[in-house]
Amino acid sequence: MKNKVAVVGAGMIDFGVLYDKSPDMMIEEAYINALQSVDNGIEPQEIQAAWVGTLRGRFTGVTLAHPTGLFKIPVSRVENACATGNDAFRHACFAIAAGVYDTAIVIGYEKMHDVKGGLIRLAAIKDIWMRRARTMPSFFALRGTRHMHLYGSTKEDFALVSVKNRHNGSLYPHAHFRKEVTLEQVMNARIISWPLGLLDCCPVTDGAAAVIICKAEHAKKYTDTPVYVAGSGLSVDSWMLGEDESLVGFPASKLASRQAYKMAGLEPKDIDVGEIHDCFSVTEILNYEDLGFCEKGQGHKLIREGVTTLEGEKPMNPSGGLISKGHPIGATGVAQIAEIYEQLRGTAGKIQVPSAEVGITHNIGVARDNTGSVSCVHILTR
Amino acid sequence: MKNKVAVVGAGMIDFGVLYDKSPDMMIEEAYINALQSVDNGIEPQEIQAAWVGTLRGRFTGVTLAHPTGLFKIPVSRVENACATGNDAFRHACFAIAAGVYDTAIVIGYEKMHDVKGGLIRLAAIKDIWMRRARTMPSFFALRGTRHMHLYGSTKEDFALVSVKNRHNGSLYPHAHFRKEVTLEQVMNARIISWPLGLLDCCPVTDGAAAVIICKAEHAKKYTDTPVYVAGSGLSVDSWMLGEDESLVGFPASKLASRQAYKMAGLEPKDIDVGEIHDCFSVTEILNYEDLGFCEKGQGHKLIREGVTTLEGEKPMNPSGGLISKGHPIGATGVAQIAEIYEQLRGTAGKIQVPSAEVGITHNIGVARDNTGSVSCVHILTR
Repeated sequence: MKNKVAVVGAGMIDFGVLYDKSPDMMIEEAYINALQSVDNGIEPQEIQAAWVGTLRGRFTGVTLAHPTGLFKIPVSRVENACATGNDAFRHACFAIAAGVYDTAIVIGYEKMHDVKGGLIRLAAIKDIWMRRARTMPSFFALRGTRHMHLYGSTKEDFALVSVKNRHNGSLYPHAHFRKEVTLEQVMNARIISWPLGLLDCCPVTDGAAAVIICKAEHAKKYTDTPVYVAGSGLSVDSWMLGEDESLVGFPASKLASRQAYKMAGLEPKDIDVGEIHDCFSVTEILNYEDLGFCEKGQGHKLIREGVTTLEGEKPMNPSGGLISKGHPIGATGVAQIAEIYEQLRGTAGKIQVPSAEVGITHNIGVARDNTGSVSCVHILTR
Repeated sequence: MKNKVAVVGAGMIDFGVLYDKSPDMMIEEAYINALQSVDNGIEPQEIQAAWVGTLRGRFTGVTLAHPTGLFKIPVSRVENACATGNDAFRHACFAIAAGVYDTAIVIGYEKMHDVKGGLIRLAAIKDIWMRRARTMPSFFALRGTRHMHLYGSTKEDFALVSVKNRHNGSLYPHAHFRKEVTLEQVMNARIISWPLGLLDCCPVTDGAAAVIICKAEHAKKYTDTPVYVAGSGLSVDSWMLGEDESLVGFPASKLASRQAYKMAGLEPKDIDVGEIHDCFSVTEILNYEDLGFCEKGQGHKLIREGVTTLEGEKPMNPSGGLISKGHPIGATGVAQIAEIYEQLRGTAGKIQVPSAEVGITHNIGVARDNTGSVSCVHILTR
């Protein structure tokens, strides 16, 4: 599938607590923004197939057809926990690479507030987890304390991720949180599940994002600066297998990224910029290790040394990541694709990473009462 | 994608009210049956990717990984209302046709009884529909009365579908209902929504089904009699568009089937056997028209003339269809693929259609508070 699919348009809405926007309004706005982003223009009729990524939104492809008017074409829903957005994109790429469609759109969205099916259902899930004494923050916090114990990372290392990402988010118009925070603020924030305080956690956010893809041969019709899908990977895993003795990091992330690197013929050192899944500050540090940017147990050194800041050698989450943008689940991965698309075209504005040529997107999701995980990774190139 | 993908194995569980089986047990059993069905054998390690189709089951690909042990590979969930099973299969075919994987499995399942997420949630949906005075039976019944008004079909025509399908189901070991019914019984059954009586409606059923696919070049490694995926189509539609003045039938079924016929280079007359979506008796008659087996308004003549019986010229639902088997949503389409696979190999036992060479599978789903529909169709060939 390497380089058979190109991204030629991307649109987002400003993420936030959107009591004033229905799911339909969010989808419609992302859709229109994506259409309008195509440099040489695109007509809705050119879109031959569509995918919607949503965890808990309305079901079926009709979800997408109503607000966009994309009727009379194939529209499917893909869901894969927190990896939903990247996986919806992956499936659209399969269909294009298989030669079935020339041009397609992927829209991810999630309404986390305000609607039946939003917070109400999340609360219901929480009940299940609570019975096992595991909320999402405590689940990731346990991996943090284990990392601290084994490798000598500190609460301050984790906090530095939040400081970095909140700084980046302050520069990014679509982010939910657009104010910087200091290290002191993060360190002193109310503890949610030690070592994670309130400012180590991504917020609860509504959002939508859309990307337009086409077969690579057609890309130049839409833009002089398309971005190609060089690699794609997905894996599930379970720590019930007992193979990962460290209980740090996520084998699924390793497996998914290795698939993507292999397809792309690239290595972790080739990555210039990434949008990776920082649902909690510690998660980003685990990602550095799982995605191969450093050895296991060394992730905190990258943040200490500033390697992953906007000005660093390998900027991660220039958009501010989930910690600044929020994590509207189905939208998250699609937004990452949209952001790396802008980075590789050089149109990322204040968060632009200079001369980025290879970008990575990454989601990690925890599922099935926290006994399993799923990760989806894409590698995009100019 | 034509003929790039082959089906080489298929397994089902006996559909029914399965209070004694958890979703995991259902998935595991379908998985093992599919593995064991492969003529020349297959090792689990040969399966490189997996898809799970479920409407309201547990979310994420991890759903499938736990009961099957299919960890460390990509597992995705596809959902598309009542078309979920066929659409999950469609996505697996895309990935194989794109050359990303050699061999994959698709498992569809639905637990409609007994569990949180089963009937409880369906009841919740019903509430939404009830506010619009539309339950599923009444929705399809309205199309029945309209067909009667416009084209002169009768309640007896619809009843003949149930008589046919319950006869077929009596011969099929996996069916939920395995007893024949008489025309008199169907006609006199308690009315659910006129003209549909209890025996015009598919039952509420638990079930799971699995199919193993591979790239066509590898098919003969697994079996001497593979079945090829000649055509695939999916479409959404909405009658809010007001384009279908008859208000009979489903434009989505027409569009999806035309895509599949076009890909396959085949026509409706080429179809030897079909497993098509008879959620209610009248739906099967509408399908005859939408799938192009007859002109619009002529569907009831096919059932009157016996064209679609097991001994007829164009047998439809030799398995007994949803009316006999039940409709465990995510499983339904995957089971159809499994059944057509057996038909085209000549291994369908008592329900075998003689020398069938081309088969069709079809789902139609109603979604978004009954304002939209989605259909997925596959054409399989020897």
